[in-house]
Amino acid sequence: MNTIELTGIGSDTICAVSTPQGRGGIAVIRVSGPQALEFVQQRWHGKPLADMTSHTVHLGHLTDTAGDVLDQVVLTVYRAPNSFTGEDVVELACHGSMWIQQHVVQTFIDAGCRHAAAGEFTRRAFANGRMDLSQAEAVADVIEAQSRAAHHVAMNQMRGRYSDELKGLREKLLHFTALIELELDFSEEDVTFADRGEVTALAHEIHDLIGRLADSYRDGNAIRNGLPVAIVGQTNAGKSTILNALLRDDRALVSDIHGTTRDTIEDTVMIGGTLFRFIDTAGIRQSSDTVERMGIERTWQAIEKANVVLWVVDVTSADTSMIHDILTRCEGKALIAVLNKTDLDDDYAARSELKDFLPEGTPVVAISAKRDNDIESLRNLIVDAAALPDVDSDAVIVTNARHYQALTRARSAIARAIEGLNNGLSGDLLDQDIRECLHWLGEITGSVTTDNILAEIFSHFCIGK
Amino acid sequence: MNTIELTGIGSDTICAVSTPQGRGGIAVIRVSGPQALEFVQQRWHGKPLADMTSHTVHLGHLTDTAGDVLDQVVLTVYRAPNSFTGEDVVELACHGSMWIQQHVVQTFIDAGCRHAAAGEFTRRAFANGRMDLSQAEAVADVIEAQSRAAHHVAMNQMRGRYSDELKGLREKLLHFTALIELELDFSEEDVTFADRGEVTALAHEIHDLIGRLADSYRDGNAIRNGLPVAIVGQTNAGKSTILNALLRDDRALVSDIHGTTRDTIEDTVMIGGTLFRFIDTAGIRQSSDTVERMGIERTWQAIEKANVVLWVVDVTSADTSMIHDILTRCEGKALIAVLNKTDLDDDYAARSELKDFLPEGTPVVAISAKRDNDIESLRNLIVDAAALPDVDSDAVIVTNARHYQALTRARSAIARAIEGLNNGLSGDLLDQDIRECLHWLGEITGSVTTDNILAEIFSHFCIGK
Repeated sequence: MNTIELTGIGSDTICAVSTPQGRGGIAVIRVSGPQALEFVQQRWHGKPLADMTSHTVHLGHLTDTAGDVLDQVVLTVYRAPNSFTGEDVVELACHGSMWIQQHVVQTFIDAGCRHAAAGEFTRRAFANGRMDLSQAEAVADVIEAQSRAAHHVAMNQMRGRYSDELKGLREKLLHFTALIELELDFSEEDVTFADRGEVTALAHEIHDLIGRLADSYRDGNAIRNGLPVAIVGQTNAGKSTILNALLRDDRALVSDIHGTTRDTIEDTVMIGGTLFRFIDTAGIRQSSDTVERMGIERTWQAIEKANVVLWVVDVTSADTSMIHDILTRCEGKALIAVLNKTDLDDDYAARSELKDFLPEGTPVVAISAKRDNDIESLRNLIVDAAALPDVDSDAVIVTNARHYQALTRARSAIARAIEGLNNGLSGDLLDQDIRECLHWLGEITGSVTTDNILAEIFSHFCIGK
Repeated sequence: MNTIELTGIGSDTICAVSTPQGRGGIAVIRVSGPQALEFVQQRWHGKPLADMTSHTVHLGHLTDTAGDVLDQVVLTVYRAPNSFTGEDVVELACHGSMWIQQHVVQTFIDAGCRHAAAGEFTRRAFANGRMDLSQAEAVADVIEAQSRAAHHVAMNQMRGRYSDELKGLREKLLHFTALIELELDFSEEDVTFADRGEVTALAHEIHDLIGRLADSYRDGNAIRNGLPVAIVGQTNAGKSTILNALLRDDRALVSDIHGTTRDTIEDTVMIGGTLFRFIDTAGIRQSSDTVERMGIERTWQAIEKANVVLWVVDVTSADTSMIHDILTRCEGKALIAVLNKTDLDDDYAARSELKDFLPEGTPVVAISAKRDNDIESLRNLIVDAAALPDVDSDAVIVTNARHYQALTRARSAIARAIEGLNNGLSGDLLDQDIRECLHWLGEITGSVTTDNILAEIFSHFCIGK
């Protein structure tokens, strides 16, 4: 983040290629700022920009500084404030050659534009009140979304559902403050709340609403980054073979996703429209060996992180010695028992030691990962076990770690206020908790956000957005 | 090429992503055909498309078949015939997520569109008379252009300069035919040309014009695919080190270009705005060994193909034994003598055996490729030697092998007509040559082109253009 970007918002005119990098039929170059029309006019041959109505499209051509024709282009004018950024915007659809894209941007820079920083168009949209910060962040999430669920949640957030919910919360908090300040105004006259019960009920309602949002982050994170599935079991039960069998059909997709995600030893794959993040683990066996014990510890951590646990059992050597340890760790998780290596033992169904130990209703599937038998049944069980909320519902789901942190802090503040109410704390002390709660919610929408936080947020955007 | 594409031009409605593949701020999806407005309307929520004026832009959102919101989009309407294809066209700028791009195209296909084949939008523009074939081909060249020169030539062709030149030629040929047919009409009355001299002069003028176009292909091909430079010299003179030194600064660019060009053992690099194609060769030495002789034969072929020859000499062992062979092969080429390994011998300047042999005015440069000394001087000499025509002039330059072939055939036909004129051949025989000449020119503009040729041409386009 450079200083120019931090200080220059709205004062200068920026430009960048907004379409994906590379060659294509057409590419779109976006220019935004107070001098957008003036700078583009210097290179434009066609109807004068000053005579164009907002939201109209015009054919003409662009020349460079030397007057050479760069391209025939289709130009669209958006006049402030009715544009994405809220500023005057000119968008130019040119032929998608690398040469043209570079040189059109170059010629606008020569004319006086500055090359836009990552996310700077969206940042200006936020700065000019076209969207709040959570909506601006959702723009990046919409562009990154790889699954139907992730897309749906980000789209809802971008369209303002989350903002509406936060606005409702803010209004309730302000109402709360008004009630308390009423008490403060009359404190010298020894008046207390007309109805302390009403205030307490309001505080609980706010606490529950914030809590529901904060709790939705577990699902939201799974939707955005992949629902974590731990694959556990004894050494040599075939865990890695199962992982490969699950990934196989979607190998290409997996590679695609790898290219876009951070380094990880986990593998993500789309099954039935949901993104899953599989965590392969070391085999479990009772051991006094320190190194092996560390491997087992990591397996317990993987289970802790997971929503779904695949417990892989080798049918040829079904060993139930650690079953109680595993079941204890899996409490509250969706557990699937996977009987593997059915190709080596066709008599496994007759033996039922394992089923005796499993909690009632635990799904069991018998497969041969090596022969690729019944992997489809396993996939279906995994999708069923995922039990993500119905994303087609319009309930707001929090997907952003920054928001989760702010919500957690807001929840603590309102919890302190409730505690204060219970303990008969005075209005001015309660007021402080409520103001802190408002502060954390304001950090989500951007009303109290610092330049450093903004710089951090928008640096993750692509250039041109 | 499938049959649908060949038979379906204009009868159905096509759609595709027109921006480069991948993720970006925005992506543009293009829909073209008689039902473009109707199909998009099925998924569009905003001002009804039927009420929109051509060339206006509207904000709204798209839903999929199930009614779920796919994206907020900016929609532009172009009504036939005032669009790129000449048909009704709707362009939708959506967020550049892969998920959205795929699903928006999918939902339009569900609504009744067909996914566009490669180059199909441009093919429709040609079929609807929005441009001739040479202009349509130039669209692809504009998108592929990697250098200023290649871009300039393709842009001129797309904007119709080449078409104008061909139109002029056609008019001259038709005038020629008219003069001859005048003779045919009156042949029974034993009338000959009023002025046979006028006809002959016209034929020569046409021949020269076609010849100039055909001859421009050598430069045109160099501009488009890189100007060929052969690096020749004795074994161990440092040819490959020089190639690496020349490529070094532009390694990234070179890789970029590699990714987009066909398999080749040659390396291309941009120097001073011109694309050069360097051809490294086996070392030359007199030999009776069959394998080595084959290598030398390939070196002679490389010189034959090249416009510029770098003759590399090791200053520590300057060997002039094959100098006459080399000079003979280099006749008509721009030759540059490169004295290499100056780091090993600082006394080389005193010796002048080599210069005695070189034709007067041959540029000589002393370098150390290993130490990277004076490579810049070598680059400058190469740029000077390239002597490409001034691309900023508006002279038409042919860059397309198909056009070159057609021009060569047209030139043969008009040459036969001239021969016929000289031999007093009758008008109807001359007429046949002129018609053949017109046919070949018509193949360039597409007026006589077959579906097979069209399919072949447009299959090289990208999808979405």
